[in-house]
Amino acid sequence: MALISLSRRLRRTPFSDGVEAAGVKGYTVYNRMLLPTVFRSIEEDYRHLKEAVQVWDVACERQIEIRGPDATRLVQMLTPRDLRAMLPGQCYYVPIVDETGGMLNDPVAVKLAEDRWWISIADSDLLFWVKGLAYGFRLDVLIQEPDVSPLAVQGPLAEDLVAAVFGDAVRNVRFFRFGLFAFRGRQLVVARSGYSKQGGFEIYVEGSDIGMSLWHALMEAGRSMDVYAGCPNLIERIEGGLLSYGNDMTDENTPHECGLGRFCNTQTAIGCVGRDALLRVAREGPVRQIRAIEIYGDRVPGCDRLWPVMAGDTQVGHVSSAAWSPDFETNVAIGMVRMTHWDEGTDVDVITPDGVRAACVRDMFWA
Amino acid sequence: MALISLSRRLRRTPFSDGVEAAGVKGYTVYNRMLLPTVFRSIEEDYRHLKEAVQVWDVACERQIEIRGPDATRLVQMLTPRDLRAMLPGQCYYVPIVDETGGMLNDPVAVKLAEDRWWISIADSDLLFWVKGLAYGFRLDVLIQEPDVSPLAVQGPLAEDLVAAVFGDAVRNVRFFRFGLFAFRGRQLVVARSGYSKQGGFEIYVEGSDIGMSLWHALMEAGRSMDVYAGCPNLIERIEGGLLSYGNDMTDENTPHECGLGRFCNTQTAIGCVGRDALLRVAREGPVRQIRAIEIYGDRVPGCDRLWPVMAGDTQVGHVSSAAWSPDFETNVAIGMVRMTHWDEGTDVDVITPDGVRAACVRDMFWA
Repeated sequence: MALISLSRRLRRTPFSDGVEAAGVKGYTVYNRMLLPTVFRSIEEDYRHLKEAVQVWDVACERQIEIRGPDATRLVQMLTPRDLRAMLPGQCYYVPIVDETGGMLNDPVAVKLAEDRWWISIADSDLLFWVKGLAYGFRLDVLIQEPDVSPLAVQGPLAEDLVAAVFGDAVRNVRFFRFGLFAFRGRQLVVARSGYSKQGGFEIYVEGSDIGMSLWHALMEAGRSMDVYAGCPNLIERIEGGLLSYGNDMTDENTPHECGLGRFCNTQTAIGCVGRDALLRVAREGPVRQIRAIEIYGDRVPGCDRLWPVMAGDTQVGHVSSAAWSPDFETNVAIGMVRMTHWDEGTDVDVITPDGVRAACVRDMFWA
Repeated sequence: MALISLSRRLRRTPFSDGVEAAGVKGYTVYNRMLLPTVFRSIEEDYRHLKEAVQVWDVACERQIEIRGPDATRLVQMLTPRDLRAMLPGQCYYVPIVDETGGMLNDPVAVKLAEDRWWISIADSDLLFWVKGLAYGFRLDVLIQEPDVSPLAVQGPLAEDLVAAVFGDAVRNVRFFRFGLFAFRGRQLVVARSGYSKQGGFEIYVEGSDIGMSLWHALMEAGRSMDVYAGCPNLIERIEGGLLSYGNDMTDENTPHECGLGRFCNTQTAIGCVGRDALLRVAREGPVRQIRAIEIYGDRVPGCDRLWPVMAGDTQVGHVSSAAWSPDFETNVAIGMVRMTHWDEGTDVDVITPDGVRAACVRDMFWA
């Protein structure tokens, strides 16, 4: 196990002081920013996430703010998802593709107003793509990374905790909607969303100066709920089939391969980059696709590279994320499998660094 | 000290097996790829780099390949440095700026042919910017990240080691030039360049499959030269004033603030993005600039965030990189200082996490 070498380049967040005080044990780097990966242990964190409530420093979900008369036109250029019916107050999960239909990011678009959007990004410098397009097309927009850092509250008690700090009106916020709620005299975007299946909210903390103040307020208000610092949990996200850009998909993949075809309205999303390529993909269908894969036997090692998925001597796919699930008492995994072997119940082998394992393609994820 | 959590998203390199076998102790993440930071200790690695020869896994210096009839036009759009006199076989250090003159990256451009370039990037997804511009301007180019991974050989014995593997002709390669040299039947770009002041080469390994073969060949040939695995060394690079994008400069800085004004030929680099903004900067001059800063007293802690530089109660800059130098027996640092206090010999204070330190602005770096 190697240490992470800290430097300014791996940016701290407005919540890093709280994360350190809570005893963070591991980090990854996401958008050149520190993202905690474990506090007590991944399995203890997992149990606690499913039973109580956690506060997550997900400041690394950086925002791209797009303002101006051409803002909505530009956002529609970015994604094959049809945004015409989207209203201010809504959040949409939007695949972003290049001109060949390759995934560049899979962010959440937050529509603040007709002429003002935030794109809450996964791990790639989507800002550069957006700025490049806007410059090339001479669009009338202002594009920047604002001082906005999401703080997530996740777990079965998340609603109670967020209500304790922001008031009971947050209970009325529906899934993938947001409202504006006051904290320390500032109006913050609070959305019902987050990178777990346990339910919860993401608070878009505008202004680093109030970051630790909100962190402390949540910790204080949640004391009776067993609140603790947490982070996206590897086991829980695989059980729930939450994909991770860079892990489970890259720019080599189309949205259709990632099972995101339902977010591609290529017939109606007029003007989106990659439309021609995706129309072709939509007609022919992908030849490989994301699948849940159960790997039999005892605990697999950490998955830090692609593991080949084999049918006899032929590679028919790969596993990109895997972990032992205490609740399902098996190894849960996410992989990409060719259509010849992607049907539910297909037996395959997975080559892990510890040896070959029997495995099975599933129709659905676990949770 | 926290551990790094490995996942596919933090990409391994063609040399990772060698790096691990050599006992890597720390990593950073650079272009979403693993970059070793320490093998024995930062000070032992430093001493060895200055006295012998090291092989560095710098695969994280990813390449952007630009091919096609508009390739040279596009590369000139990217940088304010005038490229008209550049010949195939040359490498240029090229600041890349956005339309406001803010630094997006500071790569090395490698001109392979009139219609074929590699851009060897620092830590940001410059690929997205390049692709966005090319799409917006409908340029006739093919842009991709090829399977090319630089392996650096650095240190006073670097030339002997590279000559032992590639033949004595590499001795004729001049600084920031490259030649094509055979290894295992493949022609590789070998440039006299690298991120240290000790001299050496960077081998652009085309094809991951021969990565470990070259690694082993260098280790074998260098046995009598005390060759060892190494990596960019924090102390040595600060002594030498080698800037690090993300640490010492960001998109908030112009090239002129970074002391890179000599690479900005804004009068003649026709068509470059950011020209208008940089013409203005060139006329007025920057109001703050990169400086070498000596911090007095004993060893400073690790610099993982900006440290304010103070003149009395007024902040006049910040330190972005700092380390104890065994050779110069002082703390060497890189900072950005306002013009009111940037003259050589100006006394300032630096606020470190361990307390306030007396410091002095220098005219030159140490090595």
